[in-house]
Formats: sequence, structure tokens, C-alpha cells
Amino acid sequence: MTVQPVSIRPPYLLFLGAAETNLGAKTATGVAAWRPEICAGQYRLPGCGADLGLPDLTFEEAAAQGVGSLVIGTASVGGGLPDDWVATFVAALEAGLDIASGLHARLAAVPAIAEAAARNGRALHDVRVPPAGLPCGTGAPRSGHRLLTVGTDCAVGKMFTALALGRDMAARGVAADFRATGQTGIFIAGSGMPVDAVVSDFLSGSVEVLCPAADPDHWDLIEGQGSLFHPAYAAVSLGLLHGAQAEALVLCHEAGRTLIDDGGYDGYALPSLTEAIAANEAAARITCPAARVVGIALNTRALGEAEARAALEAASAETGLPAIDPVRTGTAPILDALLGPVPAGVSA
Amino acid sequence: MTVQPVSIRPPYLLFLGAAETNLGAKTATGVAAWRPEICAGQYRLPGCGADLGLPDLTFEEAAAQGVGSLVIGTASVGGGLPDDWVATFVAALEAGLDIASGLHARLAAVPAIAEAAARNGRALHDVRVPPAGLPCGTGAPRSGHRLLTVGTDCAVGKMFTALALGRDMAARGVAADFRATGQTGIFIAGSGMPVDAVVSDFLSGSVEVLCPAADPDHWDLIEGQGSLFHPAYAAVSLGLLHGAQAEALVLCHEAGRTLIDDGGYDGYALPSLTEAIAANEAAARITCPAARVVGIALNTRALGEAEARAALEAASAETGLPAIDPVRTGTAPILDALLGPVPAGVSA
Repeated sequence: MTVQPVSIRPPYLLFLGAAETNLGAKTATGVAAWRPEICAGQYRLPGCGADLGLPDLTFEEAAAQGVGSLVIGTASVGGGLPDDWVATFVAALEAGLDIASGLHARLAAVPAIAEAAARNGRALHDVRVPPAGLPCGTGAPRSGHRLLTVGTDCAVGKMFTALALGRDMAARGVAADFRATGQTGIFIAGSGMPVDAVVSDFLSGSVEVLCPAADPDHWDLIEGQGSLFHPAYAAVSLGLLHGAQAEALVLCHEAGRTLIDDGGYDGYALPSLTEAIAANEAAARITCPAARVVGIALNTRALGEAEARAALEAASAETGLPAIDPVRTGTAPILDALLGPVPAGVSA
Repeated sequence: MTVQPVSIRPPYLLFLGAAETNLGAKTATGVAAWRPEICAGQYRLPGCGADLGLPDLTFEEAAAQGVGSLVIGTASVGGGLPDDWVATFVAALEAGLDIASGLHARLAAVPAIAEAAARNGRALHDVRVPPAGLPCGTGAPRSGHRLLTVGTDCAVGKMFTALALGRDMAARGVAADFRATGQTGIFIAGSGMPVDAVVSDFLSGSVEVLCPAADPDHWDLIEGQGSLFHPAYAAVSLGLLHGAQAEALVLCHEAGRTLIDDGGYDGYALPSLTEAIAANEAAARITCPAARVVGIALNTRALGEAEARAALEAASAETGLPAIDPVRTGTAPILDALLGPVPAGVSA
């Protein structure tokens, strides 16, 4: 396989721009939360009110500490590339850093940035741009275990659930890798495949590249996207299901949500958990006949403790599967069912 | 809606290159068969053995007759753009023709061709390149009737069936348009959307652009792609189903075929007609709750007359639906079921 997923050189200096709060630097916040060991510092422009509690480093300090990449962890007002950002990025390149961005505006399309990168031999990673030369899918069986998070809707916790499962598997001594398919996930993993930006013909093939054959005992935890029930993005979800060939699916849902995109698509209701399980299993079995949903991940952030417990019990009763909230309860019930009990001597 | 599908200016001069036989100019053959009224002539290079029975025109003769576009109806050996093709295309542009191509090599990427097009104010259409600025899907209901051809596999007759249904609807006095989604179909229609080249996020949105709201009595006949059961291309099929919001589906199948891509994907079997109907209806109903399969189109080219009749009867008995071979039997049984009996005074 000659095509490689996007790959970003650690450690990171997180660019927070002039974000007023940490919420305005959501991507950077996610990266710092999940990968503190590769986040060497933060870089803030005048007026920035966000603070991730990391050292404020100049580009020269960062380079001296061995930082590999400036990671753009926020969006600009309006989504473009303001002049002061361009000047800042050029300075980072001059100091010897790569730059990784998920902005809509492409770094390489800005002449001053492209020129500075070329002159300094530095890499520009637009993580919304898939690698060139992706193949079509083959559907051929491959070794290794794979788990894909699927959803009743967008923005229900598919990335978080895959990350939590990977972290907790590793804590049990299982060889496991998180496989990212969206911007924040790619920064967290340091590599990945922006599947929603892949040309349709190569969609399932791009997922085969993302999670290739691995050791028989190894698990890939693959970040899902969209929902088979979403009128705009279901094709992305299906390409992921077919390319992943995951034996295990975890269905993610936000407790209490009843409408697609929380009402953003008029007339579109969420499926029941039962309907979502049936549709995802049927689709997954085209390329992985053994595929099954092994658990439910409920996002219960809007609920109090008692309501959350009740929602988890109801989900489990409806489906006959372990139901977790990865934030509130941890992932143990799903991992116990999937891997067996925690080995003696391991605390997880 | 500001984004428009690809659109090619008729009439056409069909470029046959140096194809040895008509089979080597399959695309041109299809265009000449379906749209003889817009095929003004053919253009052949030395050594060409193909002949569509059209007048051989020079570019100057074609321009004088009002020809709009040179349509590349063949592939080169190796798939690239040989030097003599480049010189030929430049001459066509100099004479005042646009060029429409489905070659993998992009016309606009060849400096001599791009420069000649700009200098003469002519258009270059790479029909594998979708228009810029495609939207995401909305899933909102829209007026007009729509029919989508779906398949058990690739290359089973989805384009041919949609074309035949559109032609025969028009013969019954029904306002109908064929909506093309692949290279040959786009040349035949003069416009269309190369859905398999659309970025995944915009796939269903691109289909909404292809077949927008229309008069309540108007039918769009939409060319399907791939199959929900295909390990590489099912996502394309799902995006088409969701974006088309077609009330009527026609399931296309090649009689006797049992393996995906006729065996090209090891271990992948075709679904039964019953399974394919269930999967396509379930998927289509996400965005069009009334969607149903209204008929079966069997490609029986490999069979004798008696075997073909038996295969059609078996398909109809299995599904309870009218079964046609658009080549052998015509489309009347499906159109009768869909539209009612042929109006008095119309011969179709």
C-alpha cells in the first residue's frame, strides 16, 4: 500500500488565535484533553481569552524544545485567513515548524505561506485534504480486529467513544489504535483520513487505507461519521461501514434527541436504537458478515444523574446490549462483553 | 440554485481517434445510437477502423454547419493524451468548437489545449469533473415525479433502462427528462452530474442539483450507479438514492449473473431480487417515504429467446412486479403499471 493517511509531526504547539474563550478553541481543547503528552505549549495572539493551561511558547522556544508542528486549533471569524494569521504562520515556518490546519482556506493556496514552507523545507498539512492516489475499495478480508462507532445522528459522540474505547483497551494491555476520520480526531491521533472530503468512488477504499491489515490481536477503533439516517451524509457513513469491515460496531446516540441534526432537517426524525442497529448491521455485513453491534454509547450530558442512569437502563433493556456513557460511566461494560473480564493485575 | 450540472453545447462532432472497431469507440457509439439528431458527424484519425455511418467532417466543415462541440468518444491506448490528439484538439478549438471529454487526463491540464481554448473563447468540458460549489443535501421534499434505476451490480443496464423509460414516456406524451450520472450518459443528455467524482459530503446534494424541483406532472429518469451490495461503490448508490428522492425505483439485473462485478470481487455474491428490493426501498425511504420498486429490468443479452422469456417470468413471479428487458421487450409493462394504459391515439 503506497498511499498513506495524512500524518502530522509531534509534539504540537497549539495555535489558539484570538479565540475569546476555550469554547472558541474547541479543536485545541480536544487535542490537549486527549493528548497532553504531545502538547508542548500554546500560542496566543493579542486579545486571546482562551487558555489551555499550557506554557505560552514563542516559535523559537518551541523549535528549541523539538516541537514538530503548529496545530491550528481554532477558526477565524468568518472562516478565512486574516493577514496577521498569515504573518504568524510564516514566522512559524521560518522557525522550523510544520503547520497542520483544518481551516476551510487551504494553507498551500496562500502564496506567502507556500513560499515560506518551500524555502524552509517544512510541511503544510491541510487535514481536510485527502492524500492523492487513493484506491477504490477491494472488500477483501484482512487480519486484525476492528471496531467502528456509528450513530443515530451527527454530533452524538462517535469520536469521543472511539477514543475512550481505545484508551481503555490500552489500559487493559490490548494493542489498540484510534483511527481518525475528522479534523479534531486527526490532530489527536496525529494521522487519519478526512473521509467526508474523499471523492465518492474512493470512499470505502480510503477507509481500507486508514485501517489496513494488522496483527491478529490488534484492535483499530475507528471514528464514525454521520448516520445512515441522515439525508445529507448517509453515503459517508455507508462508505465507512464498508471500508472498515469492522466486526464490532458501537451505536452512539444522544439521550433524548429525537430529530436529525437536532431539528436542522425539517421532517427528519431519528431512528429508534433498534432500527439503527438493524440498518447498520445489515449494511456492515456486506463486507464483514460477522459484524454486529456490541454496545450502545449514550451521550447523557443534558441529563441529571438519576435520569442518565434511567436512560442507560432503558437503552440496555431495548437492545439487550451493554449501554454506557463514556464520560459518565466509562467503557467497561462494553469492553467486558467484547474482550472478557479485565485480566488480573490490571486496573481499568 | 446557482450551481448548474455540466452542460455540453450541441450538435456534436464525435471524435473516434484511432479506434480499431466500433467497440473501441463505445462511448461514441452510445451517443450516436441515442441522440442521432445531435450527432452531425464523426472525426477519425489515420488508421481508425471504427465507423458510425456519420459524415466525416473537418473541423472547419463542422463549424460552418454550426457544430458546438467535439465529443471525445473513445479512449487512447494507455489512457493518456498522445501528442497527435493534443494537436487535433487544438485545431478543433481554433476552428471554434468546444471540447467535451471523459478521459482520465484533464484537458485543462494540458497547457497547449488550455491556451487554445482561452485564446478562442471556447469551453473545455471534463465530464469527470463535477461543478464547483456543490451544496450538501437538504432532503427537503420537491415537486415533480422522479424515477431512479438501481442495480444488483455495476454494468447491468441502469443507463440504458433510464434512457429507454424516458424515450418511451416521451412517446406517450409525458414530459420526461433523462438525468445522467456517468460519462456516456452525460454526453447523451448534453448535461449531467458525474456523481462518482463528487466529494462524499456533497454527494446527495449533487443529485438534488441534478434533478431539481419540476412541474408536478414532469418525470425525471435518473441514471443509477453501482449497487448497495458492491464493496467499493455502495456509498455512491446510497447518495444517489437519498439525493434523488425518487418515488419510483426500477431494479436492474443481468439475468444469470451471480457474482459482484461478474466475479471481480472474490467472495462477493449478488443479492436476490427480493433482497435487493428490500435494501433499496429501505434506503430510499429515508428521504422519500413513498419510494417503491415498480419494476425489474433484466438484461438478457446472453440468453436465447425462450430462456429470456423464462427469466422474465421468473423475475416477475419472484417479485410480483412487471419484468422487462428494455432491449428485447420494451418498457411498456412498467410504464403501464406506473402511468396507466397508453392514452388513445398514441402509438407506443
